[in-house]
Amino acid sequence: MTRPRVVIIGGGFAGLTAARGLRKADVDVTLVDRTNHHLFQPLLYQVATAVLAPSDITSPIRWLLRKNTNTTVLMAEVDSIDVEKQLVHADRGRLSIPYDYLIVASGARHAYFGHDEWEPFAPGLKSLEDALKIRHRFLIAFEEAEKAPPEERESWLRFVVVGGGPTGVELAGILPDIAHHSMLDDFRNFDPRDTKIVLLEGGPRLLTAFEPDLAARALRDLQGLGVDVHLNAVVTRIEKDAVYVGDQRIPTRTVLWAAGNQASPLARSLGAPLDRAGRVLVNPDLSVPDAPHIFVTGDLAAVPYKDGQLVPGVAPAANQMGKLAAKNVRRLLADLPTLTFTYRDKGNLATIGRYRAIAEIGKVKLRGQFAWWFWLVVHLMYLATFRNRILVLIEWAYSYLTYQRGSRLLTEGEGDGVSAEPTRSTAPVVPASTGAEAVRIPSID
Amino acid sequence: MTRPRVVIIGGGFAGLTAARGLRKADVDVTLVDRTNHHLFQPLLYQVATAVLAPSDITSPIRWLLRKNTNTTVLMAEVDSIDVEKQLVHADRGRLSIPYDYLIVASGARHAYFGHDEWEPFAPGLKSLEDALKIRHRFLIAFEEAEKAPPEERESWLRFVVVGGGPTGVELAGILPDIAHHSMLDDFRNFDPRDTKIVLLEGGPRLLTAFEPDLAARALRDLQGLGVDVHLNAVVTRIEKDAVYVGDQRIPTRTVLWAAGNQASPLARSLGAPLDRAGRVLVNPDLSVPDAPHIFVTGDLAAVPYKDGQLVPGVAPAANQMGKLAAKNVRRLLADLPTLTFTYRDKGNLATIGRYRAIAEIGKVKLRGQFAWWFWLVVHLMYLATFRNRILVLIEWAYSYLTYQRGSRLLTEGEGDGVSAEPTRSTAPVVPASTGAEAVRIPSID
Repeated sequence: MTRPRVVIIGGGFAGLTAARGLRKADVDVTLVDRTNHHLFQPLLYQVATAVLAPSDITSPIRWLLRKNTNTTVLMAEVDSIDVEKQLVHADRGRLSIPYDYLIVASGARHAYFGHDEWEPFAPGLKSLEDALKIRHRFLIAFEEAEKAPPEERESWLRFVVVGGGPTGVELAGILPDIAHHSMLDDFRNFDPRDTKIVLLEGGPRLLTAFEPDLAARALRDLQGLGVDVHLNAVVTRIEKDAVYVGDQRIPTRTVLWAAGNQASPLARSLGAPLDRAGRVLVNPDLSVPDAPHIFVTGDLAAVPYKDGQLVPGVAPAANQMGKLAAKNVRRLLADLPTLTFTYRDKGNLATIGRYRAIAEIGKVKLRGQFAWWFWLVVHLMYLATFRNRILVLIEWAYSYLTYQRGSRLLTEGEGDGVSAEPTRSTAPVVPASTGAEAVRIPSID
Repeated sequence: MTRPRVVIIGGGFAGLTAARGLRKADVDVTLVDRTNHHLFQPLLYQVATAVLAPSDITSPIRWLLRKNTNTTVLMAEVDSIDVEKQLVHADRGRLSIPYDYLIVASGARHAYFGHDEWEPFAPGLKSLEDALKIRHRFLIAFEEAEKAPPEERESWLRFVVVGGGPTGVELAGILPDIAHHSMLDDFRNFDPRDTKIVLLEGGPRLLTAFEPDLAARALRDLQGLGVDVHLNAVVTRIEKDAVYVGDQRIPTRTVLWAAGNQASPLARSLGAPLDRAGRVLVNPDLSVPDAPHIFVTGDLAAVPYKDGQLVPGVAPAANQMGKLAAKNVRRLLADLPTLTFTYRDKGNLATIGRYRAIAEIGKVKLRGQFAWWFWLVVHLMYLATFRNRILVLIEWAYSYLTYQRGSRLLTEGEGDGVSAEPTRSTAPVVPASTGAEAVRIPSID
């Protein structure tokens, strides 16, 4: 007699928690993920800005689940779900994994509001590959500025972040720190302090998940760091060397996208009703309408919360959903009725630059340096392993004591080929002499 | 009046030392490197085997040279050297950098003895990208073994290292450690202890740079770790899923190449006499015949040492050459005769697995665990920055205390596309049931 088979798609917060919740259940669990690692997404922006190394905030999923003796971890890319035959297809048809119960936790990707043509010029920040791509773009901009003729230098030294949510604010807040401190002595043909950071938000305010007074404080903190924040600034076009707000052209070589999310396309193969962002409109117990043995969790699930809002796409929500999905599978196995999901809001946190943050925990509001220390402790606590915690703590201590970036590393194959292209492929570049005559790079033809 | 221009190609040990040797000279220095980082190559095999993270053993070149106010660092790929016009061409014609003095330190790449078609199946280990490629291949083999049908599993779990020099011995020695300890609880469809490590050496002994008795000890140590060492084993063919020694076919999905080097192709554009491995046959003062203002250093220079041997391609030799090249440039500027290069042999070191090493320092020979401690201290001392030292020390402590690998990280874009291909693209894979019935992945068609 075989045991019931539970398949979990995704090894993020929701999927991992679900697998852990089934550890002692009398089932065979298969967790499938595109990568071999669990990623601590809240610190991803620090990998993108070269503060942390990729391995600081990741851990092998199979290692995290090594004590789950009923769980097999497969690294495979899921193609589709066949709800009727109860099969998960993966690796372009190579694998077909049967299930009795399915927990879908494949998350979300960034989205470009129907402008997918912007993606090559404005990478988003969801996966580790995204972060490495952004790190590459970010670091190469300075390398290119050192080589570029003066008239092109300005656009290499202007960084535009699109989107005023937590990711956009945290990215925009950390960039001045790097430009104005970390690289101060490293270049000869320009002054890194000439770097400009622009934050574009389409709506009337930043950080809509926070109370207005905290968001206003974040805005002031950002401006204090020298970030040029534009509200009600809707991006209409992105090109290789500029971003447009209405008709206004902002010359830049580096646009970072933190503006929109779209649920994993797997949601569609469930045949369930979806919301505008592609999330599954689940039942109160997180199951899929007409498919009581399939649960959807994390960023992929649209779960009503309060005031017409949805449960936000944050780590604590994903953990809570993963836990309940596992519990509901166990209850179905025991012929018990499933339980309804109730979101417990653990609060909101965002850092602004080097020493500041804002935090809301229930009715308590924190800001400034104290909030930053709170943020630091919470993030260290939630990192997956002891090793991650130690390494992140050391990198932070190093970075904050010395103002240096630990992971200023450009490797081939991490870039996307756009920014590394020659500035002008036909005409030769003739940088004019700098005042100090430190370098002269005449061209010959 | 402009200052003399010195261009240095390469930011490895030789190039970096040369730049430092010119720090106080009244010249304008431009250092050009393909990457933005200096790499501590002696520990590269530990990145390839996921012990260390890439950023642990790298540092930004421009940061290392930030106090060299006379030095501009450019990240650019050198295309060729025009000896007559005294120009270095880079970035596919985009940059042309004039020089009065040139120091070429562009190093070597691995070579396949005329079998370049082997490269996709047998990556070598020279650059950080190489190491990431090998790490990807190495980690994905276990992931594939977990998914593969039993008859294919064996070839995923056999790792073949080609070449019995220090790199090959260090790679082969560290692999059993990982297979037999680090991943013990992580897989459900096979036992990582079934992993086989094979080391193929074409000549009659390992480690020809060492005395025969130390090399014999290394052989015994490797065999004690379970490595299957074949001497006089000349590789005749490498395919996607096998390597051939004569007519013998060894099924394997993972071949690591540590067998041969070829000097950077830039050597050819100097128009100087080269040896068989493409190295420049320099004058005793490291200058190029008929080009007294061009110096060649590091792995790119063929410098006679003793008993008909050349100065070996090791870090101390590169440092010594870089230092002398800088000194000779300074002497030419002062109208003094150049000095002859004399190699001071600092000894040889190689680790074998987790706790053993062999070392020769002058007439002193060390082996076993004491040599391993010596190796550890020397490598920590020579790492470029304090940050590197601390991080490497912690990763080592973690790895040696817990038997875990810190950087078991698979990211897209680091692989070369070969190993990630489906095992068989047309036929579906039908893994048979394991004894424990832990996973069953039937295929449907």
